Amino acid sequence: MRKIRMGMVGGGRGAFIGAVHRMAAALDGQIELVCGAFSSSPEKSKASGQDLYLDPERCYGSYIEMIETEAKLPDNLKMDIVSIVTPNHMHFAPAKLALEYGFHVICDKPLCFDMSEALGLRKLVDDSGLIFALTHNYTGYPMVKQAKQMIAHHELGQIRRVVVEYPQGWLSTRLESSDQKQASWRTDPSKSGKAGAMGDIGTHAENLVEYMTGLQISEICADLHTHLEGRQLDDDGSVLLRFENGARGLLYASQISAGEENGLKIRIYGELGSVEWTQMEPNSLWVKWLDKPTQLYRTGVGELYPETIAHTRIPAGHPEGYLEAFANIYRNVAKCIQARLEGKIVDKIYQDYPTVDDGIRGMHFIDKVVESGNNGDQKWIKL
Amino acid sequence: MRKIRMGMVGGGRGAFIGAVHRMAAALDGQIELVCGAFSSSPEKSKASGQDLYLDPERCYGSYIEMIETEAKLPDNLKMDIVSIVTPNHMHFAPAKLALEYGFHVICDKPLCFDMSEALGLRKLVDDSGLIFALTHNYTGYPMVKQAKQMIAHHELGQIRRVVVEYPQGWLSTRLESSDQKQASWRTDPSKSGKAGAMGDIGTHAENLVEYMTGLQISEICADLHTHLEGRQLDDDGSVLLRFENGARGLLYASQISAGEENGLKIRIYGELGSVEWTQMEPNSLWVKWLDKPTQLYRTGVGELYPETIAHTRIPAGHPEGYLEAFANIYRNVAKCIQARLEGKIVDKIYQDYPTVDDGIRGMHFIDKVVESGNNGDQKWIKL
Amino acid sequence: MRKIRMGMVGGGRGAFIGAVHRMAAALDGQIELVCGAFSSSPEKSKASGQDLYLDPERCYGSYIEMIETEAKLPDNLKMDIVSIVTPNHMHFAPAKLALEYGFHVICDKPLCFDMSEALGLRKLVDDSGLIFALTHNYTGYPMVKQAKQMIAHHELGQIRRVVVEYPQGWLSTRLESSDQKQASWRTDPSKSGKAGAMGDIGTHAENLVEYMTGLQISEICADLHTHLEGRQLDDDGSVLLRFENGARGLLYASQISAGEENGLKIRIYGELGSVEWTQMEPNSLWVKWLDKPTQLYRTGVGELYPETIAHTRIPAGHPEGYLEAFANIYRNVAKCIQARLEGKIVDKIYQDYPTVDDGIRGMHFIDKVVESGNNGDQKWIKL
Amino acid sequence: MRKIRMGMVGGGRGAFIGAVHRMAAALDGQIELVCGAFSSSPEKSKASGQDLYLDPERCYGSYIEMIETEAKLPDNLKMDIVSIVTPNHMHFAPAKLALEYGFHVICDKPLCFDMSEALGLRKLVDDSGLIFALTHNYTGYPMVKQAKQMIAHHELGQIRRVVVEYPQGWLSTRLESSDQKQASWRTDPSKSGKAGAMGDIGTHAENLVEYMTGLQISEICADLHTHLEGRQLDDDGSVLLRFENGARGLLYASQISAGEENGLKIRIYGELGSVEWTQMEPNSLWVKWLDKPTQLYRTGVGELYPETIAHTRIPAGHPEGYLEAFANIYRNVAKCIQARLEGKIVDKIYQDYPTVDDGIRGMHFIDKVVESGNNGDQKWIKL
Repeated sequence: MRKIRMGMVGGGRGAFIGAVHRMAAALDGQIELVCGAFSSSPEKSKASGQDLYLDPERCYGSYIEMIETEAKLPDNLKMDIVSIVTPNHMHFAPAKLALEYGFHVICDKPLCFDMSEALGLRKLVDDSGLIFALTHNYTGYPMVKQAKQMIAHHELGQIRRVVVEYPQGWLSTRLESSDQKQASWRTDPSKSGKAGAMGDIGTHAENLVEYMTGLQISEICADLHTHLEGRQLDDDGSVLLRFENGARGLLYASQISAGEENGLKIRIYGELGSVEWTQMEPNSLWVKWLDKPTQLYRTGVGELYPETIAHTRIPAGHPEGYLEAFANIYRNVAKCIQARLEGKIVDKIYQDYPTVDDGIRGMHFIDKVVESGNNGDQKWIKL
Repeated sequence: MRKIRMGMVGGGRGAFIGAVHRMAAALDGQIELVCGAFSSSPEKSKASGQDLYLDPERCYGSYIEMIETEAKLPDNLKMDIVSIVTPNHMHFAPAKLALEYGFHVICDKPLCFDMSEALGLRKLVDDSGLIFALTHNYTGYPMVKQAKQMIAHHELGQIRRVVVEYPQGWLSTRLESSDQKQASWRTDPSKSGKAGAMGDIGTHAENLVEYMTGLQISEICADLHTHLEGRQLDDDGSVLLRFENGARGLLYASQISAGEENGLKIRIYGELGSVEWTQMEPNSLWVKWLDKPTQLYRTGVGELYPETIAHTRIPAGHPEGYLEAFANIYRNVAKCIQARLEGKIVDKIYQDYPTVDDGIRGMHFIDKVVESGNNGDQKWIKL
Repeated sequence: MRKIRMGMVGGGRGAFIGAVHRMAAALDGQIELVCGAFSSSPEKSKASGQDLYLDPERCYGSYIEMIETEAKLPDNLKMDIVSIVTPNHMHFAPAKLALEYGFHVICDKPLCFDMSEALGLRKLVDDSGLIFALTHNYTGYPMVKQAKQMIAHHELGQIRRVVVEYPQGWLSTRLESSDQKQASWRTDPSKSGKAGAMGDIGTHAENLVEYMTGLQISEICADLHTHLEGRQLDDDGSVLLRFENGARGLLYASQISAGEENGLKIRIYGELGSVEWTQMEPNSLWVKWLDKPTQLYRTGVGELYPETIAHTRIPAGHPEGYLEAFANIYRNVAKCIQARLEGKIVDKIYQDYPTVDDGIRGMHFIDKVVESGNNGDQKWIKL
Repeated sequence: MRKIRMGMVGGGRGAFIGAVHRMAAALDGQIELVCGAFSSSPEKSKASGQDLYLDPERCYGSYIEMIETEAKLPDNLKMDIVSIVTPNHMHFAPAKLALEYGFHVICDKPLCFDMSEALGLRKLVDDSGLIFALTHNYTGYPMVKQAKQMIAHHELGQIRRVVVEYPQGWLSTRLESSDQKQASWRTDPSKSGKAGAMGDIGTHAENLVEYMTGLQISEICADLHTHLEGRQLDDDGSVLLRFENGARGLLYASQISAGEENGLKIRIYGELGSVEWTQMEPNSLWVKWLDKPTQLYRTGVGELYPETIAHTRIPAGHPEGYLEAFANIYRNVAKCIQARLEGKIVDKIYQDYPTVDDGIRGMHFIDKVVESGNNGDQKWIKL
């Protein structure tokens, strides 16, 4: 076998999520970054590539140049996969081109700018048969997988209630008025799409709920708000949830919750017990029971599901974090591509990464939440 | 000065909240239990009174007997105040009679069975000029008062968002089908009123939010649900909140959140920072700031508001709990009555207990949440 | 039956622990404070008694006057028990006199000023057959009792290691140079005895270890230190422990641990698992196992030992604290006295309060720790 | 600039710490693994190298072969640094050879088998002028660096007390009797050296204390014990500490603390306040003050020292863990080597990794703790 070769679109100097993708890809030694189009400015792209010790010839001036040039390289050199880490409005075009040229794709979330792009992408993925992974990275945590398996194995009984919250505080001021790159594109509807906080982090919460419970949200009732004058997109919102099985719930996403860091937290209640998981302390899973002591499940301790163990690297008490969870998605994608290269089928445990269908689901969620948030009269909207 | 003399209605053998009221009244040595009508069964009432070492002659067979008899006792013997600890449908009648006979009243929450009783009580209280206290006991915690003062003194800036949650798990099964006294009246609409979890604990959450923020909820949108087949009242519900100042929020109350104990928690976000308080760890108040380290305020540590200090008994690190917070309400009422007896005015810090107006507000909240929960079409309902 | 009648020595205006004893005695409605000698100043004693609404005739000018006068009162009036809440050097004399006059005694810890007093007291208690309780109040917590029972029932296997820590920070400055009453007598060897922090809080730790494990410390090796210049007694110390069964451990007591409140914490490790309990979050007991998820035992949740349940008042999630634990000792003493008055034998569960023998053990610990701390050469000293 | 090229000694299939070193080296994209001698079995070494996608020609049969062969490669190919991840008794020989052939070295802790090896290594390092880094990886955490800087900048005042604890439970049974590779060499004095738990984890604690406080331990008094029959080295021990400035403290290391994972925790108390850091929740630093609210410092939040920021990769609330801290040591070493290659001097912030002198200090600590633990009479031993 060999390492998987990766090209990157976006993630040049000053970007945040590009570096995260690179560390995630590097961590397990399965993927090698071989080329990139790191910026819409060719000069900046090349400089960024050199920071990363890449062959200057493979630091491209645009994603089009990258994809077209790499496609012509011999098989033992050319990239296998394109990682797309640009703002939302710049996901679709490079993903489309990559798929058209036969490259697998791994793309930052949300899937793209709007639903029509999303449906277009799905068709391309379906037609090409290529791998398309979306980095809803929070599903990569081992304790998220443990909870998912506990629920799937009916340990909690029928699910009755879900509470998922995602408070952040970093947009409590008009940060976008300053030079802050992350804030400015996220609050700009021409780059971010129709939702602000709900698109940026609400979709993570929605994805996590459906991944962990195995249930689909069937109806929503939302209240979206923009607290800061002059801001164009929602910075705070709450959504009442109803699930296909009759369960009820709540989801909220806020970027004006002053003093909160990255407070994604989920609680899922069944007939027999419940699970609670907090992203900021990810190696712990609280399992609470009717009339029995609460249990603290920890990565690496005791009997855990194979899915949990397969996504843990180091022994109990040696904390793994955000990058390791993110890397689990890259590692699984690498294993799936390697299997294809060898004509094998990878163990089902590793066929576990968010797909274009998860992305469609997220775009649909954004559409409906925004519709509900703007609609003063109708209480419930079907998802 | 002398101790305040108290009679009790309800709280006989097997009751829960009656014993809590008695411990709360006894703790600070300001109140003496002198008589009671502890049960609707005269025999059980007398037996209960003897458990409490009361004079058998003052263990009455009914609240009517108690109030009428005590009213005839000389001033140096007769009770000053009636404590009412019966189920909701049995609040109004004894409260009315007590007020009519000139006794102060301290009453368990919610105020009474329905809005018409509530308005009747308010009139009686207003007309009589007597003290009427409602035991929304969670407002008695020192750290709740600290947060209230921090907000009132603008330390957090304008309030933007509130999240108050109240999960319990004890009604995850049909406990009311067994012999469990607490479960059976709380799930019986003829005793509890029109709401289940929302009346029992949702009103605590509503009261706490308005007490701490100093803001009124102006609009709500609720989803109420009964998860257990055959149960007659809601056991789970979520409410979107809008406040008079434009703040947004969420409130939920659930008694089917399996594995949760008594999880009242509130988070209040302002422009500059936020506070977070959890009832199960009540001596801690988390204060989070934009771009500064989070602070952990603790009872007894450092500079705190006089209101906080006045409701703390023991030094830092010696945990005070539920009974002490409950006792703060009794202690304040006792101080107010003592002041009246002496013709003095008590310090404003001690004029701090929930009143009949808070009770009206809670009944109104119940009405509107039930209306919203039953109303499929209209999204927002004014409060 | 009737309430137990109590007289108090010490605890006048400005004292700390006296008020704690009074609240603890009052909480459960089993004990009535009827008289007191609250101060060495007769005027202050009387004023303090009036603050407490006592009959002015029973606010005595000295403990001698109190004991002698009460002894002459008729049986249906006179006190049953004397509560002693003075500084250490003032425990012995009133305890002795009370026992000689046939009164039961409940006394603050440590037992007394030195070992000779301690042995004298034990003889008086043994000869009189009266009840003598020492308020090592931390043993009163329900979760301490749960851990004790789990160990006694071999749930953890043979005990191998114990770590008990007691950091406080309040003597990080020369507080005794100011007017602070608590600091000044505790740092004065003529009032406190030969140890500072080790006597004040180290003895609590020692008592808790032996109570919970059921094991005796057999050897110690201590390092005591006084960090603040001019202070006469230790304010910081650590002790290596060896137990009779071969277990090893550590105990430390510090009052210069800046920023710590009242951080008593104990961890006990057996062959199969361990328990961890922290006084500042007393309703939680962590139980950790080899290769199984950690359990969080909580007061009121699930199946607990009868000893735990008997010392819990309110349902799960309604936090009980320091005063409730303290009250458990008073309540048990009251039950034991009531049983004697009725010629009955109280359930063994309530015969659970620290005795004069625990007090002797604590005085012995102080002696040996001070000996070890002052002895540069000899490593291990037998206890 | 270019990536630094690394060869590895040890860390073949079935090893634990080798994989950690590889992930740590890969994470930041500064280091490339180019060769290795992964096992004392040449076949296993080659197979392990192929798992890692290495050139089969550079998967060597022994460290001698690796060093000698690599030394002959042209400058644009040959490795720069040797990473040594073998058991303790196999550190010295490959380190010596690597240094003699002019390669930099990064070596797992403790430094080597005994003091004579340690002194030999120091001489080689000093004479060669090469970089020698020791992976006391816990010093790599950003919040450890924050605490170190706060202390160095006198924010806590003079240090008075230190408590460092390191409980693990994984050797609570005779795991070494099974096939467990980690347990078997660690409990074998011919491979581990003269100490068990004290060498394996006690040295981490010792290193962390001195790194964070900037103070040296001057005297110790230890109690070492082996709880499991038949085990040859200590599995549990406690040490009283005295520091050069008069501060006192405690250190303990235990591998029979049933139920503990990897519980390294340190508390450092100064005149004005204290810091508390726990390895299992590494992004939090508790800062406690005299009479002020406790502060929770978090990676990425608010104003932090440049040393902290330079060792943090991702924004607040995105947890970094063990591998990231470990990678900070590799990243700093890489930066230092790159600077040498370019003839530059690296910023002082990156000249921050444990050195051979730290290793000597650790070996000295092991010697003295074992001496003290075996010596029944003498209480204090100078370090």
